[in-house]
Amino acid sequence: MNTSEKLYHPGKTGIWIAGALGDIAVTLITGTLSMRHGLSSRSGLCTELPPVNGLSLTSLDQLVFGGVDIIDRSICDVAESIYRNSKTFSRELLDTVADEIGLIDAQIAIMPELSWQASGATDSSCTLVQLIDRLRKRIRQFREHNGVDHVVVVNLTSAEESTPDVPEKATLEGLQRLIADERRDLLTPGIIYTYTALLEGCSYLNFTSNSGPELAALQELALRERLPFYGNDGKTGETLIKTALAPLFACRNLQVLSWEGVNMLGNSDGSTLHDPTKRAAKLANKEQVISRILGYSPHADVAINYVPSLGDWKTAWDLIHFQGFLDVRMSMQFTWQGCDSILAAPLILDMARLSEFAWRHGESGPMHHLAAFFKNPVGVEEMAFYPQFEMLLAYAHRHLGPEKSGKSLFSTAVP
Amino acid sequence: MNTSEKLYHPGKTGIWIAGALGDIAVTLITGTLSMRHGLSSRSGLCTELPPVNGLSLTSLDQLVFGGVDIIDRSICDVAESIYRNSKTFSRELLDTVADEIGLIDAQIAIMPELSWQASGATDSSCTLVQLIDRLRKRIRQFREHNGVDHVVVVNLTSAEESTPDVPEKATLEGLQRLIADERRDLLTPGIIYTYTALLEGCSYLNFTSNSGPELAALQELALRERLPFYGNDGKTGETLIKTALAPLFACRNLQVLSWEGVNMLGNSDGSTLHDPTKRAAKLANKEQVISRILGYSPHADVAINYVPSLGDWKTAWDLIHFQGFLDVRMSMQFTWQGCDSILAAPLILDMARLSEFAWRHGESGPMHHLAAFFKNPVGVEEMAFYPQFEMLLAYAHRHLGPEKSGKSLFSTAVP
Amino acid sequence: MNTSEKLYHPGKTGIWIAGALGDIAVTLITGTLSMRHGLSSRSGLCTELPPVNGLSLTSLDQLVFGGVDIIDRSICDVAESIYRNSKTFSRELLDTVADEIGLIDAQIAIMPELSWQASGATDSSCTLVQLIDRLRKRIRQFREHNGVDHVVVVNLTSAEESTPDVPEKATLEGLQRLIADERRDLLTPGIIYTYTALLEGCSYLNFTSNSGPELAALQELALRERLPFYGNDGKTGETLIKTALAPLFACRNLQVLSWEGVNMLGNSDGSTLHDPTKRAAKLANKEQVISRILGYSPHADVAINYVPSLGDWKTAWDLIHFQGFLDVRMSMQFTWQGCDSILAAPLILDMARLSEFAWRHGESGPMHHLAAFFKNPVGVEEMAFYPQFEMLLAYAHRHLGPEKSGKSLFSTAVP
Amino acid sequence: MNTSEKLYHPGKTGIWIAGALGDIAVTLITGTLSMRHGLSSRSGLCTELPPVNGLSLTSLDQLVFGGVDIIDRSICDVAESIYRNSKTFSRELLDTVADEIGLIDAQIAIMPELSWQASGATDSSCTLVQLIDRLRKRIRQFREHNGVDHVVVVNLTSAEESTPDVPEKATLEGLQRLIADERRDLLTPGIIYTYTALLEGCSYLNFTSNSGPELAALQELALRERLPFYGNDGKTGETLIKTALAPLFACRNLQVLSWEGVNMLGNSDGSTLHDPTKRAAKLANKEQVISRILGYSPHADVAINYVPSLGDWKTAWDLIHFQGFLDVRMSMQFTWQGCDSILAAPLILDMARLSEFAWRHGESGPMHHLAAFFKNPVGVEEMAFYPQFEMLLAYAHRHLGPEKSGKSLFSTAVP
Repeated sequence: MNTSEKLYHPGKTGIWIAGALGDIAVTLITGTLSMRHGLSSRSGLCTELPPVNGLSLTSLDQLVFGGVDIIDRSICDVAESIYRNSKTFSRELLDTVADEIGLIDAQIAIMPELSWQASGATDSSCTLVQLIDRLRKRIRQFREHNGVDHVVVVNLTSAEESTPDVPEKATLEGLQRLIADERRDLLTPGIIYTYTALLEGCSYLNFTSNSGPELAALQELALRERLPFYGNDGKTGETLIKTALAPLFACRNLQVLSWEGVNMLGNSDGSTLHDPTKRAAKLANKEQVISRILGYSPHADVAINYVPSLGDWKTAWDLIHFQGFLDVRMSMQFTWQGCDSILAAPLILDMARLSEFAWRHGESGPMHHLAAFFKNPVGVEEMAFYPQFEMLLAYAHRHLGPEKSGKSLFSTAVP
Repeated sequence: MNTSEKLYHPGKTGIWIAGALGDIAVTLITGTLSMRHGLSSRSGLCTELPPVNGLSLTSLDQLVFGGVDIIDRSICDVAESIYRNSKTFSRELLDTVADEIGLIDAQIAIMPELSWQASGATDSSCTLVQLIDRLRKRIRQFREHNGVDHVVVVNLTSAEESTPDVPEKATLEGLQRLIADERRDLLTPGIIYTYTALLEGCSYLNFTSNSGPELAALQELALRERLPFYGNDGKTGETLIKTALAPLFACRNLQVLSWEGVNMLGNSDGSTLHDPTKRAAKLANKEQVISRILGYSPHADVAINYVPSLGDWKTAWDLIHFQGFLDVRMSMQFTWQGCDSILAAPLILDMARLSEFAWRHGESGPMHHLAAFFKNPVGVEEMAFYPQFEMLLAYAHRHLGPEKSGKSLFSTAVP
Repeated sequence: MNTSEKLYHPGKTGIWIAGALGDIAVTLITGTLSMRHGLSSRSGLCTELPPVNGLSLTSLDQLVFGGVDIIDRSICDVAESIYRNSKTFSRELLDTVADEIGLIDAQIAIMPELSWQASGATDSSCTLVQLIDRLRKRIRQFREHNGVDHVVVVNLTSAEESTPDVPEKATLEGLQRLIADERRDLLTPGIIYTYTALLEGCSYLNFTSNSGPELAALQELALRERLPFYGNDGKTGETLIKTALAPLFACRNLQVLSWEGVNMLGNSDGSTLHDPTKRAAKLANKEQVISRILGYSPHADVAINYVPSLGDWKTAWDLIHFQGFLDVRMSMQFTWQGCDSILAAPLILDMARLSEFAWRHGESGPMHHLAAFFKNPVGVEEMAFYPQFEMLLAYAHRHLGPEKSGKSLFSTAVP
Repeated sequence: MNTSEKLYHPGKTGIWIAGALGDIAVTLITGTLSMRHGLSSRSGLCTELPPVNGLSLTSLDQLVFGGVDIIDRSICDVAESIYRNSKTFSRELLDTVADEIGLIDAQIAIMPELSWQASGATDSSCTLVQLIDRLRKRIRQFREHNGVDHVVVVNLTSAEESTPDVPEKATLEGLQRLIADERRDLLTPGIIYTYTALLEGCSYLNFTSNSGPELAALQELALRERLPFYGNDGKTGETLIKTALAPLFACRNLQVLSWEGVNMLGNSDGSTLHDPTKRAAKLANKEQVISRILGYSPHADVAINYVPSLGDWKTAWDLIHFQGFLDVRMSMQFTWQGCDSILAAPLILDMARLSEFAWRHGESGPMHHLAAFFKNPVGVEEMAFYPQFEMLLAYAHRHLGPEKSGKSLFSTAVP
């Protein structure tokens, strides 16, 4: 296939997941199989909407899954547990895809040595350099065994404790020195995943609030390797609604006095975020959106409560207290009852397809057109959802050209 | 003052209101006085936000109020009743502005002959031609007595029953024939207000769901007289939220299965809309937004319930039932607790200032850049709030030019 | 078995259901089998709570199901449809009980001739007298075939149009004359079910808003036959909450100004209640509770909206606007998201067990101690939930005697 | 007046408040004056309802107010601040009662020496024994100056830190030794108020979560002095609703899985409760009700967030996740938007009247019939609202006798 053909004919694409046995990853894998079998619609996928669906994206049939996790389980066990606790899979779906899921297990490495934040740095069984080698080897095997043209590495691991921001993280050389010096107090697994993925020529997506693509050292590496990447922290529920609603208050000059948010969830994410040191980064991502959209900082607390009985079903309640004409105080409340994994999984499919497309078209560096998918999009000031989404539309129109763009979802042209 | 100076130096502007003794009108008048006295902030006014505040708009000090109503009351009585029932005015405000309010009473004509829909056409005390003459004379007196440069007529009357759409309404000549023939079965007061305003050289804003600016005959008249106009049906509460939220479901490819809305309010608007024949037009305006934004029609009922104890405080509850990845069903609810008049009044100030600006700059016809203010914006297909609001931003930028535009509320530029 | 033994040793009990193929009936049957197989807990059953569980009630193993419906389906088909639409059954449950369910189908008669309200009275294939004979024969066969000691007939049919209240309905003789005269304009299927059940020596429970046990003629028959009965209209969701909350406002002297309720549901009940003539009785039952508990009548509308996507999952939203000290106005809202059949089914099991118990102990007439189960309990003025529930507790204590009563759920004794 | 006459003719009653310049106290005083002037109804007062209103209670005209506070302000200043921030008073009310309020200021002692928990024990200007003497002198002066027959002391101060439970608190003698030893680390102001009030022959009501009437030492004193008392922690909002709703889940055997409560408020109570050491006692009171009503302990967190813009208007949101028949999971949410002081003030009037009545009738010790007014009623196991309220009804009926009882609010008699 020559270059020009390749531009329009995507090959096999690998999605290699850090945290491959978590709820989101298993929902992503099972859901893709479900769509392949025609058992469910394409709901939730932005890449199926015009104009984005006009791009020559990799098809769902060409996706291959693999990855790494720290706990030894089978995908099937996780899927059964989701079925029982969250009822987002049907029995029929599980029965239909059981064999295919079983085969994917072989593509997932179990590497408990990746959990040094939890287990403590000292008792690690290998050096960071060795660890990176092991991960690189795994990714290479995945690529070769499956014959994939390009691998997109996605971070779906649990929230990590933040580490101090030292000058070494500003340069690739500095970062490599920290690695050589075994500075696990400064290096999170999230940083190692990003570093490894880029070294192996993979695109990288950081769907967590962990460190990674925002580090100057890693951006330097991505540009050197001519690879696209993006993050941080997928925008799936309460924050998504906030970034759609808060601009309304700004546009109508309604002064927000307080915007209080309460998130209740019962999955492992909820359990991890129960730990204040681990939720710090996530809360920072969630809290900044209001003040950055409004241009001032109202009282805006965000609480995350672990409520086990809810399972993967998150219930968020927000109270917005605001002031209008004559300084009269009014209020709005909303309750969001969504299933976290169901909301997150399709975004990863969308972004993996768009990452492969960017890579195939020789685009490297931060994919700002994916800003609408993240709570804290790297390098983008705009926090409002619609202007962010327009960046994706503009990207699609740029690639499609005027003649192919056709009818878009939104048109702002004055008649 | 020469032409060029006039362009940048707005003179006195009259706001002449049909329904001048309703809650919104009295809130508008009282609120303007409150701001003049420094008793309240500019909250709620979009024209105070960048970049719109960069335009040479008429100042609040240059506004003069007048109008017409069908029931004989004083502004002061209405204001006291709002104070008692809705608590949106403070005692101090009413005491401060009492004298000024008293003077405005003289600018308001009481014309019960305008209520033929309620009273029946036959027992009218004058012909439509005579009625139009009386209204024109009133507007002329208001303009001359107050020395205003330009009058903006605003329709804030109660919801009217719709009348059949006959071919005569498509041309100015046809409309004039219906007037001459006393066809009150086909002509609503709303049509008469629009016709009269345009004949008298006034801009026209239709904040109600009544007939007016959307009629081809009246658009013909506006263009002939080189006058700007816009409507219909101010977007203040539940529908506003809908047009900000529904696009989110579209952008994320979340299939809306049902979007049920319940509006509870206790003011005269609620009382009028209790009558199914009168709420038909309003419900049509409210219901269309969902299907026009989504591109398909989910189950989407809107109920309007009259709950007297709520007064002007509307409580709207919406239930959104939707389907995401793997066709999993999720839901969102919101409760909106706002004061109708407080939400509506500043929009009229905004639009009156922008109408006078358009008139001063020789712009005529439908002001599409005001689309974000209306449930059913004349001639605009786009129903989503943000693209509508961007039309206003683009208008401001066009007038300001690049050097003066400065920092806008939103910027969609990719970094 | 002698009399005294019989008193303490319940035999086989039949639950014979009018509307046996509706969602509630199929949930009741499937749920009973589920508990027998140990697949689900006894949640939802009051008869499993102390002190009621101290009574010698028939065990779940001794229950036998049968009944009649107007549409020809199998229980299995209905169960599969519930599984798909409402997800209240698991695949495993359906697979486990499939054979048992299949056997129950033989106990259900399909009699389209019972739908004269829908189909029109004239084209009936048989007289009312013939119809009653057929129903009696069916019940007799059910009793004999299954060797049951006592049959409880339960009405779970759809809401019917009310019929005029004529003097004949006040006496058994009058009612029999209406039957002989084929007065289908005055006689609903609900009346026929009650009449037939009592003639056949069955207890009768009316879980619908249809006519039945409240008719003087039928109460006369029940007393003559020495049979217990009760109704009307099971209290499962929004009304249940109302009768628990409204007394709080009364006790605290908080004046309720408005209590607005909106019920959204998508099952066949929702579809039937979409018809204003059919929902009249149900709305009357729902609306009266507030004024009867408070002793005055605030604005209290109840809306029932058919929202198909919700299936059996009812979402009710209530807004309570009230006035406290200094006449300050405050509000409360609640959202109830429950599954109608899941809430209703256990109440029928409870009441069937208690009906059999009453019959075995020679109690006849209205079972006032079941008041807490109904929106409109026959012959009971008290509408507040807790005083109603105490009637059940008192009943249990009366039967148990002081020594066996043990620890109750509630104790009001001052320490 | 002889004994028998006195029994039926209440004299002047003093309400002497610790925390007399807080929002609740000022609302209580202003509200009583408002009712005396006929400016507002008796809404919120249980003592105005049958059968309680049949008791010979002191009339509102016979109430006299006084007390103590730690911060030097005037009632008028506090009232103006409530007017501005919470809008629960009208301008007209404040103008009408200004003079009367001014006179009450003289009855309120400012004693900053009562704030040793905040200021630290060492720098106190007087010993505890001296402090108690000062307080007693103040109460005596209040009684004599106003010629009141009986004084009810009410604790309305802010939440205090708890102190360790030492054996000395179990006996009056031990408590007196702690006082003599200046053990401010073990003695809160709340304990001192209770001790002082009882020594001075006053009834005592503890409306806060602070220590007091639950101490064995103080109960010993009350019984010795033959005085009635009660507490702790007034039940005004979210907990009130919980104790009305939770029994419903118990009665219907609906297993509560999680009951999560979030309280947002912006008054000084909210500010104090922001401090984890101070909210401990209150949270304990709020959290225990669910498990004590249900008989098991579901996940049941209660959060208290300080949201300044809300002022005295508390917004509480509760999520109840429960399981019914077939173990199906369902949910209920409620939002409570009430004004804290408006809800609390009438309860104090009610209880002060009932305390004076109890005292006049020679009743001493804990007034269990006031259990329904408290989150944690001393010596009462029952947490459900209605059984608690029935204890008040039973008390009233006992005093009224069968002939005078008349129609009560609730009747549980089977017809």
